[in-house]
Amino acid sequence: MAKPSIKSVAVVGTGVIGRSWIQVFARAGCAVRVFDADPIQVAGAMSWVEADLKALRKEGGIKKKEARARRDRVRVAASLAEAVDGAGYIQESGPESLEIKRSLYREIDSAAGPEAIVASSTSAMDMTDIASELKGAHRCIVAHPINPPHVVPAVEILGGAATQAQVVHRTVEFMRELGQTPVLMRRFVPGFVVNRLQAALIREAVDLVSSGVCDVRAVDDSIRDGLGLRWALMGPYGVANTNADGGVQEYFTRFRQAYHDIWAALNTDVRLDDELVARLGVETDAMLPAPLPVQRAWRDRLVGAIRRLKADDPLRGSKKKAKRRAR
Amino acid sequence: MAKPSIKSVAVVGTGVIGRSWIQVFARAGCAVRVFDADPIQVAGAMSWVEADLKALRKEGGIKKKEARARRDRVRVAASLAEAVDGAGYIQESGPESLEIKRSLYREIDSAAGPEAIVASSTSAMDMTDIASELKGAHRCIVAHPINPPHVVPAVEILGGAATQAQVVHRTVEFMRELGQTPVLMRRFVPGFVVNRLQAALIREAVDLVSSGVCDVRAVDDSIRDGLGLRWALMGPYGVANTNADGGVQEYFTRFRQAYHDIWAALNTDVRLDDELVARLGVETDAMLPAPLPVQRAWRDRLVGAIRRLKADDPLRGSKKKAKRRAR
Repeated sequence: MAKPSIKSVAVVGTGVIGRSWIQVFARAGCAVRVFDADPIQVAGAMSWVEADLKALRKEGGIKKKEARARRDRVRVAASLAEAVDGAGYIQESGPESLEIKRSLYREIDSAAGPEAIVASSTSAMDMTDIASELKGAHRCIVAHPINPPHVVPAVEILGGAATQAQVVHRTVEFMRELGQTPVLMRRFVPGFVVNRLQAALIREAVDLVSSGVCDVRAVDDSIRDGLGLRWALMGPYGVANTNADGGVQEYFTRFRQAYHDIWAALNTDVRLDDELVARLGVETDAMLPAPLPVQRAWRDRLVGAIRRLKADDPLRGSKKKAKRRAR
Repeated sequence: MAKPSIKSVAVVGTGVIGRSWIQVFARAGCAVRVFDADPIQVAGAMSWVEADLKALRKEGGIKKKEARARRDRVRVAASLAEAVDGAGYIQESGPESLEIKRSLYREIDSAAGPEAIVASSTSAMDMTDIASELKGAHRCIVAHPINPPHVVPAVEILGGAATQAQVVHRTVEFMRELGQTPVLMRRFVPGFVVNRLQAALIREAVDLVSSGVCDVRAVDDSIRDGLGLRWALMGPYGVANTNADGGVQEYFTRFRQAYHDIWAALNTDVRLDDELVARLGVETDAMLPAPLPVQRAWRDRLVGAIRRLKADDPLRGSKKKAKRRAR
């Protein structure tokens, strides 16, 4: 991985998302200054960073020297102003409250250098609402990761009304340089892209169980030993493409009526009432008896392994074609 | 893998699904008799079986001896009666026409032994509609795979009104013995479980593009470098479980309102008109320039690799707990 074009970044807010961002930036070689108004939170985040690096070393993912280098790139700042001073990119992962974010962005905007990009990890807010009254609204943007970003690379990128096209472009490029996968949105919708796709699937997952078609285990088995195996490699369009000899166009033409029929049959009036939620909890606990930290460590380890599989054996085609043409 | 409890099976219908089933049964050690009313189709399926075994040998997946043993387990039958004679399990993968299936099931039912299970690969039909008038309706069942079943293990299992509980149970067990993952359904719904979950996600995937929120690439990136990485390991309930310290119950309680809000915002009036389908085709082709056979071979190779990752490093917990208790 080449060194990223932005060398110095600030991480503001050090909850589960913020601390994971620290690893993303330090891994890529950036100098990271970290700030959180809560000193207990920031101490916890730094302990987690060290423990995570130690675990990575133990699993053989990185050498001692590399772990130390990453650790040495991270410094806790005593104030927000100190954290953002000289930073080319600021990743904010504060509480999901519009009032708090507005106040925080006023502070960041007045302390940060004029060229710095200010990005929010918000999963729900529109940057127009957060930053519209700021002098630096043009350099504010949403960069919403999937939890945890140091494991799962997709990051949703969305500017507000005032965000400059150049800032969007540079954020997309920076994410690529970090090894993340930018998912560029053109306009705000509730839930963005990722949580809408997830919510659409979960609505049906919940309805299948609540209406008695099958149990929690059947739903999860059908994904992890079925659809999910393909979706780890190709999105829904890629999968559709491989399911008809004429590709996506033939697929959606041939199965148009089948999709319209299933769509008409899906229940859209699904409610997560207390009784249902309790039942889903009981069935899931029975399916997954391992303690949660074991489940999470396993998930992260295997997500990493799947990413390496894909990196080592990428889907080629365009390059080969180009080579053939060049001969 | 222990030898399956049913030693002799028949594959009736040898299209893309039927030929893949041949590999599932032969791999598990079953004697497989194959029939298709169309001799060109059956010849094509047998050529594909040999080519697939050759590719598997070349990739180092199996030794020459094993490839030959699998090939030797498969025999083409001259008639339907010959194919099902002595078979303990019959997998039917004929055309998706109720009229054709009814006629085929009359023939199978009168030729097959009284103990044989007759399973259909149908993705849409209710076994009650196919088999209700048969003497052997009690042994007829749906076993719908995800394409291709020799690569992707999930198989939806659903009896008709007359299907015996014992037949459902034995089919579920047999699928496990074959190395497949049975997804047990309790009642018929259009699209079953897998295609409903897929259709729910695809409806949103199509709406995001058609409404201009993002392009095809952004949707696919958000799945294959995001949600899909987790879904290859855990279904939606498992993922929800790991996303809150209190598990699924806390997760759906905490995010209940967020889900209800996103669900209310999802467009359910999505139509795959010609113009949209053409556009999705163009964007997908631009995203995936590799030829379709290359895409499919890559997908199948990497799905296999992900399955091996999971088999080599399974999520433990219950066993460890049991061991600790035993000490």
